[in-house]
Amino acid sequence: MQALKDRIRREGENLGRGILKIDSFLNHQIDPALMEAAGEAIAAHFAGSRPTRILTAEVSGIIPAVMAGRALGNVPVVYARKHKPITMREPVYVDAAPSHTKGGEVLLMVSPEFLSAGDRVLIVDDFLATGQTILGLARLTQVAGGALVGIGALIEKTFEGGRAVLGSLGLPIESLAIITSMDAGQIIFAD
Amino acid sequence: MQALKDRIRREGENLGRGILKIDSFLNHQIDPALMEAAGEAIAAHFAGSRPTRILTAEVSGIIPAVMAGRALGNVPVVYARKHKPITMREPVYVDAAPSHTKGGEVLLMVSPEFLSAGDRVLIVDDFLATGQTILGLARLTQVAGGALVGIGALIEKTFEGGRAVLGSLGLPIESLAIITSMDAGQIIFAD
Repeated sequence: MQALKDRIRREGENLGRGILKIDSFLNHQIDPALMEAAGEAIAAHFAGSRPTRILTAEVSGIIPAVMAGRALGNVPVVYARKHKPITMREPVYVDAAPSHTKGGEVLLMVSPEFLSAGDRVLIVDDFLATGQTILGLARLTQVAGGALVGIGALIEKTFEGGRAVLGSLGLPIESLAIITSMDAGQIIFAD
Repeated sequence: MQALKDRIRREGENLGRGILKIDSFLNHQIDPALMEAAGEAIAAHFAGSRPTRILTAEVSGIIPAVMAGRALGNVPVVYARKHKPITMREPVYVDAAPSHTKGGEVLLMVSPEFLSAGDRVLIVDDFLATGQTILGLARLTQVAGGALVGIGALIEKTFEGGRAVLGSLGLPIESLAIITSMDAGQIIFAD
């Protein structure tokens, strides 16, 4: 997606150790129109697989996921919670993923009310990096008995190996901007 | 907003102690079209005050805020972070609000990169309850030198007194669904 790559080139900051700061349009400030266009691009790619539910993780996966859900007609979006709110009743599906940017491990919790057998689940997230968060969401879907139909990400960092980690799932993966290297302060795209 | 009230009547759960569970369309699962319509309703109300920035708090304020920003043309949305990510550089504006649903206190952090003097700030959140989170966002705006133009909320619980708390700000407040009582397991709307 050209507009996204242009925006990363213009405003993305390479903070080192593979960390890309995009706080000006997604991770702290959000550009609604850019996120709408990104959601539409993901939706266009996966419309044929007819998802019945989109699954993402809080916080920054939510916006592209909702925009994709809107563009797919009106597919409901479920976001895995990292902390159990008092409104979430036991039992819940729980998985965990190591956090790249925060250190430690983050929990991923989804209520069985909103993820079930019969669901055709599209996973959407902001980043595909190590793939661990998306893998956790995939396991939650499998535990719930849902069928995975694909994975959509705004930005993939190929050098963190996530695509290989997710390979065993055998799913189509679509990333709107693919970064192959962030060595030496650069941000290099796949094309 | 009739569609929102209808949805609360149909799917909202009164968990007692003033806690409204709306996990089926906002707080865990999100209905994209309903949130789009809610954002449009907030935008319609505040279009005349020409906001240049929308300010909200993570997590569940983000969706209505982004939908309102989209409907207002394309007003950027800044969400106050509760935990400082490694991409956020010091100095940051910090405030805090007591958490009604989680206990303790939550931090509200905004980078000066995305909130500044000259900004005309519309605050949007999912709930207006005690008003403390919104008051914290208002103080952050004032510290940054921005001008507040209004407050938009999806759901107001009048019995928690937030409107009076926010009264000293002298701002227009628009809530799309106003709940006056949740006593005895009921959910009573203002009209």
